[in-house]
Amino acid sequence: MKLTFSPASPFARKVRIAAIELGLIDRIEFVPTSVAPGTPNDEYSKVTPVKKLPVLILDNGDVILDSYVIVEYLDELAGGGKLIPASGSLRWKVKSEHSLLQGMLDSMLLCRYEKMVRPAGLQWQAWSDDHWKRAWQGMARFEQHSEMLARSLDMAQIALVCVLGYADFRFADCGWRKAYPKLDAFHQKMLERPSVKISLPPAA
Amino acid sequence: MKLTFSPASPFARKVRIAAIELGLIDRIEFVPTSVAPGTPNDEYSKVTPVKKLPVLILDNGDVILDSYVIVEYLDELAGGGKLIPASGSLRWKVKSEHSLLQGMLDSMLLCRYEKMVRPAGLQWQAWSDDHWKRAWQGMARFEQHSEMLARSLDMAQIALVCVLGYADFRFADCGWRKAYPKLDAFHQKMLERPSVKISLPPAA
Repeated sequence: MKLTFSPASPFARKVRIAAIELGLIDRIEFVPTSVAPGTPNDEYSKVTPVKKLPVLILDNGDVILDSYVIVEYLDELAGGGKLIPASGSLRWKVKSEHSLLQGMLDSMLLCRYEKMVRPAGLQWQAWSDDHWKRAWQGMARFEQHSEMLARSLDMAQIALVCVLGYADFRFADCGWRKAYPKLDAFHQKMLERPSVKISLPPAA
Repeated sequence: MKLTFSPASPFARKVRIAAIELGLIDRIEFVPTSVAPGTPNDEYSKVTPVKKLPVLILDNGDVILDSYVIVEYLDELAGGGKLIPASGSLRWKVKSEHSLLQGMLDSMLLCRYEKMVRPAGLQWQAWSDDHWKRAWQGMARFEQHSEMLARSLDMAQIALVCVLGYADFRFADCGWRKAYPKLDAFHQKMLERPSVKISLPPAA
């Protein structure tokens, strides 16, 4: 299998951590891929018209996306019920937490694009403020409902690590550790996992 | 169950169609909800910090998001394997097609926000062009791989109807019917379903 990948993508990081934890990483070849909004990438558009990272390309050519569906696929390949509970209310809890974290990442990327990619003079502060607030209030949600931080490893926890790592990578001064000490402790503990440590984003 | 809802949201429409087709619509109370980027909605932020429509609020207070996970949940509630194949390669095909369509909708909403919500003078044409191209090339993908249009009803087909309906609603002059005649025929046929017809977006 091939995975389109960039070390800066929090979505690709999520899949990488999941693949390591599921024991599948040796079956995946990483294909370095670069995408930026406002810049065409005709070759990658043929793989996925929405041009998002990552996609998983199976040996028969089938393309699996997005990062959530890839983790579902890998989880099933590993026997099922490993990172996503197979049934019961916890299944929907983990999936819904994951959706929330996915939305937080989307908002963080929109903030990044607004401030760093969009040409100077075209920024709209209310847009950045709104999207940053979504990410920030999302972190608060997990600080307040901290029972999820103590579960055994699942897809939502992996996504949360990717949110916090992306905050360090692109919003280094945002102060999430001071504001959210339980998330800080969770992040420290997660860093003991080789999968989490090896996949830290590069220096910005 | 309660569903936060706006008749203009293609994501909420997808869930509405799925709920009708699964025979669950009578168990769902619609809660009219309005969100706009750049405008706070503190009450809804408490429900979901990312402020996206729709979320499903269960009778025990649990909140299920996003629209994809809600459809998964409703499908399971209806017995499973109805709108999402329960196993096999078709399962991953439908899920991946759905992810692509979800990304296309995200891009179409970003185009809409760029042109109609962002203050005049702050538009970035390359951003709109890029995101519109993603949606447009995504439509081309389904026109070219038209075998999906003839399957029995599934979540990807429902999402495709919502993409095309949203194109009519917000990009009425884009010309998708002329460019993609197979999608036009598919859309016409889908409109024979009461679920699809009743959920058409309001006049823009």
